[in-house]
Amino acid sequence: MKAEFINPFLSSLVEVLKTMAQIDLEPGEPDKKTEDIASGDVSGVIGMVGPQIKGSLAITVEKSLALHIYSNMLGESIEEIDTQVKDMIGEITNMVCGGAKRILGENGYEFELATPTIISGQGHEIHHKVSGPKLIMPFISNFGKAYIEICFDK
Amino acid sequence: MKAEFINPFLSSLVEVLKTMAQIDLEPGEPDKKTEDIASGDVSGVIGMVGPQIKGSLAITVEKSLALHIYSNMLGESIEEIDTQVKDMIGEITNMVCGGAKRILGENGYEFELATPTIISGQGHEIHHKVSGPKLIMPFISNFGKAYIEICFDK
Repeated sequence: MKAEFINPFLSSLVEVLKTMAQIDLEPGEPDKKTEDIASGDVSGVIGMVGPQIKGSLAITVEKSLALHIYSNMLGESIEEIDTQVKDMIGEITNMVCGGAKRILGENGYEFELATPTIISGQGHEIHHKVSGPKLIMPFISNFGKAYIEICFDK
Repeated sequence: MKAEFINPFLSSLVEVLKTMAQIDLEPGEPDKKTEDIASGDVSGVIGMVGPQIKGSLAITVEKSLALHIYSNMLGESIEEIDTQVKDMIGEITNMVCGGAKRILGENGYEFELATPTIISGQGHEIHHKVSGPKLIMPFISNFGKAYIEICFDK
């Protein structure tokens, strides 16, 4: 998996949270995903399909960060991950992949996005069934952590 | 959402479990999905994208049924939902959607499938972010229940 393909997703997440929620994310060290257990409390999962690309992406967010994003984006605070928070995580997943799709399209990678599915529940596990590598990238903020998982068929 | 579009997914699940695992599924009554909580213990989620279609499908299976499918397909029993069971649920999700895609292609509906993502963890919740209706269809077997959720953008 080439950095030129992965990086647009990472920069897009940083950009989306900065512009939409005024939250700064600090990228950590990328790693191979070996454990299924999600590192956060709510996850947006989206499928991607194109001539050269077939895969899935998950954005997993800790509850404290998810609630902060909601509060900053919508101007009202909330205590629990409810339907509105899930829809917001789905929308962020859409925006991040949409931003990456635009950049990648300019570089000759064409793909379409499916609709996002939002997973929640304490200790939920996400297992991507792909033939290629599974990458996980952590991000740190003042309000909690977020992770992007990107997985593709070879 | 037309029955002619939904039915191939339902018949494909019945067919796949019958031929691959010698398990008979009895279709129940379709309903609108209103609750996020998954009715089963392990779920295969897949994105679908085509010119007329953009959506997500989840196949959710109770643990007892998942373990029975595994045992019948692979000839060895297993006690817990481990990586092999998850991969099998992902493979079944692929096969069901692949079968439906073939039938629907003959009727003029073209779409591509992303890679499946498998969700597990007790009480995990699945929330499809789509603008169209969300359908859930239960199936009953001697070993437990399975559910198909199909959701599309309008």
